[in-house]
Amino acid sequence: MYIPTLEDMRTARARVTPHIHVTPVLTSRMLDEVSGAELFFKCENFQKAGAFKARGASNAVFGLSDEQAARGVATHSSGNHGTCLSYAAKQRGIPCTVVMPHTAPQAKKDAVMGYGGRVVECEPSTSSREAVFAEVVAETGAEFVHPYNDHRVIAGQATCSAELIEQVDGLDAVIAPIGGGGMVSGTCLTLSGLAPQIKIYAAEPEQADDAYRSFKAGHIIADDAPNTVADGLKVPLKDLTWHFVQKHVTDILTVSEEEIVEAMKLIWRRLKIVMEPSSAVPLATILKNPKIFTGKRVGVIVTGGNVDLDKLPWN
Amino acid sequence: MYIPTLEDMRTARARVTPHIHVTPVLTSRMLDEVSGAELFFKCENFQKAGAFKARGASNAVFGLSDEQAARGVATHSSGNHGTCLSYAAKQRGIPCTVVMPHTAPQAKKDAVMGYGGRVVECEPSTSSREAVFAEVVAETGAEFVHPYNDHRVIAGQATCSAELIEQVDGLDAVIAPIGGGGMVSGTCLTLSGLAPQIKIYAAEPEQADDAYRSFKAGHIIADDAPNTVADGLKVPLKDLTWHFVQKHVTDILTVSEEEIVEAMKLIWRRLKIVMEPSSAVPLATILKNPKIFTGKRVGVIVTGGNVDLDKLPWN
Repeated sequence: MYIPTLEDMRTARARVTPHIHVTPVLTSRMLDEVSGAELFFKCENFQKAGAFKARGASNAVFGLSDEQAARGVATHSSGNHGTCLSYAAKQRGIPCTVVMPHTAPQAKKDAVMGYGGRVVECEPSTSSREAVFAEVVAETGAEFVHPYNDHRVIAGQATCSAELIEQVDGLDAVIAPIGGGGMVSGTCLTLSGLAPQIKIYAAEPEQADDAYRSFKAGHIIADDAPNTVADGLKVPLKDLTWHFVQKHVTDILTVSEEEIVEAMKLIWRRLKIVMEPSSAVPLATILKNPKIFTGKRVGVIVTGGNVDLDKLPWN
Repeated sequence: MYIPTLEDMRTARARVTPHIHVTPVLTSRMLDEVSGAELFFKCENFQKAGAFKARGASNAVFGLSDEQAARGVATHSSGNHGTCLSYAAKQRGIPCTVVMPHTAPQAKKDAVMGYGGRVVECEPSTSSREAVFAEVVAETGAEFVHPYNDHRVIAGQATCSAELIEQVDGLDAVIAPIGGGGMVSGTCLTLSGLAPQIKIYAAEPEQADDAYRSFKAGHIIADDAPNTVADGLKVPLKDLTWHFVQKHVTDILTVSEEEIVEAMKLIWRRLKIVMEPSSAVPLATILKNPKIFTGKRVGVIVTGGNVDLDKLPWN
């Protein structure tokens, strides 16, 4: 297992700069009043393809040799990673195949295809996904880019907090949602090296609290079938992300579904930005834990903005 | 009738700077592709109190003498002007009264009261509103700040396009939604003086097309009871805004309700920002009129972001 380093993050940053946005940091006096903290929202919902995953995907795609690249990239994901890998592949002009269950929302398939990617459908089971994915790789020779348990992806996500600490001075903490742990690992990579005084918190839905339970137990626990409105956070930790989480995260905190939806509406109303339920988990966590966050300067990673407007969680 | 000048706009700008945001300009490669134009979205949805009207309201409030200010300000508005006047009054620490029909949404009343303003209810008729408003002024001696037909308000709104032309070079056109004409008049004031080569378009719902019909007829025509999802645009032109509209606007273009809602979803999905139906009218107009806008660099005023998340027009 190769552990990506600060040097990998710096290489990633130079590599992805032409293909991603330096996203803005937004603040709200009202949200500061409500939380008692100073909050700095790092808006990856404004990122290319609508999510921070454009960073990791771009780093993986543009790090390939020409020979590798010609065979394309492939992944399995019914979320932002598939869309972002398709985006990055389009930028390089190479093929991209995304395996997803036929039950995935049409909007997710359309998003992949909108950037020129190919969608290959499987049954909604791990065994079918793995079988279909193996076929795709055998046929194409495509390079597998895992959604998070991949050192190239983590080094790419790590560029986000490198920007953040240049944009905001004197942060006491950074908080990000945790699913598979790609963003949290990238945050750990950068901050442990460049700003070790900044505490790192991971925020997780109670109903998909495998990372929380893993953290408390000291080993990876995977949920059987987590169900949460924060649909980007259902996936489990893997060995590489677990390495960063257990080593550098100060704490993992959980919130209820209701708290997530309330925080999401609060951000939409006050920051006037469209973001995913997953991205509201950190604010919900901050509001729930004033003893930890009151008086602190806190960076809040808004991970993405790809939400189905026809199925908002409060309707 | 006093016609505000560029000098008034400059005075306003210096006066309101401490109380408003210089709002960002957002772009989207995808929206440029869809429209065939280069679009620069001036995001007043990120403005203080969530709408450009914070500019005009702040200019009116901070232009008062101490003696006038002590008696407070008053207006009738069930929209953003009431909220923004309350915001500005709070910044100066003076009383603000907003008369609105008892039928107005509770959220609008809460928004005014959230900044410390007082809401006085009337019946939902012009006669009741005028009678109740006259009582308020008689009681308090408050200064009336009209939502748009007021030279101080127009000079304040004019600061928006002054920022825009500093933020974006070489604009061919600016397009803004038109209701009472405050934003359009401010745009005319600034651009006719500082950048007369930039064409000014006003965008209006077909179902509230009084400005369109006035423009074509050459005199003000008021609708009887317009009904549109773009609820900020139901009010008619008045003499001062009509002066600017008939003198400086290149054309007024109209769009259907369906086109407005589609454009609104497109902006939410692609720009990832929360904005009002009224603010989608310009993009709908651009998409409907490729002959006018293709190949042009167009500034698009996103007027506000105060939308009821529980009553989105596509649900």
